[in-house]
Amino acid sequence: MAQMSKRSAVEPFHAMDVLAEATRRRDCGHPVISMAVGQPAHPAPKAALDAARRALDHGRLGYTDALGTLSLKRAIAAHYHSRHGITLDPQRIAVTTGSSAGFNLAFLALFDPGDRVAIARPGYPAYRNIMAALGLEVVEIEANAEAGFTLTPDSLERAAARAGKPLKGVLLASPANPTGTVTGKAQLKALADYCRDHSIAFISDEIYHGLTFAGEETTALEVADDAVVINSFSKYYCMTGWRIGWMVLPEARVRAFERIAQSLYISPPELSQIAAEAALGAHEELDGYKRAYAANRALLLERLPQIGFSIASPMDGAFYAYADVSRFTNDSMAFARRMLAEIDVAATPGFDFDPLEGHRTMRFSYAGAATEMEEAMNRIARWLA
Amino acid sequence: MAQMSKRSAVEPFHAMDVLAEATRRRDCGHPVISMAVGQPAHPAPKAALDAARRALDHGRLGYTDALGTLSLKRAIAAHYHSRHGITLDPQRIAVTTGSSAGFNLAFLALFDPGDRVAIARPGYPAYRNIMAALGLEVVEIEANAEAGFTLTPDSLERAAARAGKPLKGVLLASPANPTGTVTGKAQLKALADYCRDHSIAFISDEIYHGLTFAGEETTALEVADDAVVINSFSKYYCMTGWRIGWMVLPEARVRAFERIAQSLYISPPELSQIAAEAALGAHEELDGYKRAYAANRALLLERLPQIGFSIASPMDGAFYAYADVSRFTNDSMAFARRMLAEIDVAATPGFDFDPLEGHRTMRFSYAGAATEMEEAMNRIARWLA
Repeated sequence: MAQMSKRSAVEPFHAMDVLAEATRRRDCGHPVISMAVGQPAHPAPKAALDAARRALDHGRLGYTDALGTLSLKRAIAAHYHSRHGITLDPQRIAVTTGSSAGFNLAFLALFDPGDRVAIARPGYPAYRNIMAALGLEVVEIEANAEAGFTLTPDSLERAAARAGKPLKGVLLASPANPTGTVTGKAQLKALADYCRDHSIAFISDEIYHGLTFAGEETTALEVADDAVVINSFSKYYCMTGWRIGWMVLPEARVRAFERIAQSLYISPPELSQIAAEAALGAHEELDGYKRAYAANRALLLERLPQIGFSIASPMDGAFYAYADVSRFTNDSMAFARRMLAEIDVAATPGFDFDPLEGHRTMRFSYAGAATEMEEAMNRIARWLA
Repeated sequence: MAQMSKRSAVEPFHAMDVLAEATRRRDCGHPVISMAVGQPAHPAPKAALDAARRALDHGRLGYTDALGTLSLKRAIAAHYHSRHGITLDPQRIAVTTGSSAGFNLAFLALFDPGDRVAIARPGYPAYRNIMAALGLEVVEIEANAEAGFTLTPDSLERAAARAGKPLKGVLLASPANPTGTVTGKAQLKALADYCRDHSIAFISDEIYHGLTFAGEETTALEVADDAVVINSFSKYYCMTGWRIGWMVLPEARVRAFERIAQSLYISPPELSQIAAEAALGAHEELDGYKRAYAANRALLLERLPQIGFSIASPMDGAFYAYADVSRFTNDSMAFARRMLAEIDVAATPGFDFDPLEGHRTMRFSYAGAATEMEEAMNRIARWLA
């Protein structure tokens, strides 16, 4: 048999492995509680489901324009106007097959093999894995307590100096996964300005927008016209399984993204585009879910430290607790496997987010149902007692 | 603003550009007939729509295992048993977000930048464009009448000799887009054997299976255990807009594909997976559609030559007529634009499929409704008269 490629040796996305094992156990009748993947317990909003039903009744679902239907692009532009007071040409919006497609398109369109792109550590593992598969040089910059758990012009400057080679891109998520860090407007502007001054492409991951519990939720579009913004209907809008997201692009970049998207994705799923458009108006329902996450967050902020897991980051946004579990283990991968096997609670080993220090951390998603969060905390407390 | 990447300069997928322009014109009230993209006129089968409706009523749609639900994988394995008499371990099946994801995953998992991969010319443009974006060296081998419009060990041997550098991969579609070539079992086996003997990865694109009108429809799995097979629910199953497909992988390769898919796609859309499983049983309905394509095919085989477009390839499978339009133009791109602007008939310039000789060819999809095909032929005949 012919060989696999060198780049196929990327790290697994361990959260997905934990999910797969959790699914297998659940299918065998185990009472699994999953806090492993960032996935709301709620279905898509009613309006989205109704729109999808109408579309199923109405006729054919087909290819759309590669960057999405004009109707959805207009609705997203209107959303920026009502939420942020920003007027956007709908043609700057690119609808994508989840934010996953957004990241892949951005990395392909903006960077060539060997280019250095900075991300925060800890951070979302798929960034690192996709970049590695595409031949980019990943520069992980520690986003520790001292740096406010985010990236700053200073930390970028030091990273570039250490490497002796300039950065070509910077990717920052706010709210961030797994730390929950919310990077405020002034900090975001400083970062965007630094990038512009140094001809660095700035990618702003805003997929947890709508889920900020403390601090100031800013879109990069408020401070930078030239940022590449990535967003998603998966989190606030509860549409993970629909695989639908969007980007906002500088006008001059749209066509290059479109060319790549045409061949790589053809188009995003049409039914998901129709449902997503309806979801944009469902704030009442979705804000109710957000209040439920806030209650879960309060529960974890109380119970995790009692259990002996100290909270290792801000938890200001998104729906994750990133906890230091070093009182119990120095091998979070084995710990996660044991926790699932012995008490049917799935959580993600920190190694996914931080190859250097993740052996002593775990990520718990609190997007699940309150009763499940409570039960999971009880099981862990009994297990470790 | 920071620069775009060099690799962002890939060719557009011209059929998608034609589709976008056709959509714009239709939205403005023009009576557009689209023969540009390979898209059935029919919606997904009733059983698929019903399954989707039940899933919408039933609850949350979420992330699934990265390579798809076990339930769908089992159903696909059962399909190979009933259709081809092949027994497959469901774990060898990878469900993908359309065959687009299958191609991207295959190229990433099997090849590194600089590797040489052979495809047929004319052929599906996204192969070439994705490979270019991923840094592969595309070797286009002319699949002309002499070579039976397919690839052969001989043509591969000559291509490798010309290049003085061995091939790392070969990708062949059967039925082929745009030529409609069906590569028979003996030819497919000879090709797979050649690849195995030369440590070349063999990728078999079978997305038009189910749509063979003449000749012998063979899956590579019948002749090679080590082939990477790519298939889709878009064509025979009429589910383009659902973005759902699958691969069959050699057992030893599954984990590498899974690792890449976890980060690049998270998972395929769940609703599409549920609908696809139901579609697998809808042969009665789908074979009815196939009979309609056969009638369209007969119409085009008669009308295109009358119009002065000679048929340039076998048309044994898939749902395309690849026609020589050189009697009327030496610039198929401009010709396609004019045809759309003047008589509202959209078709794809051959340049998409053949950078060398496509200036004098056009591809007409005959997956549309019979009345539309008839009307399109009438419009073109009047227009050129």
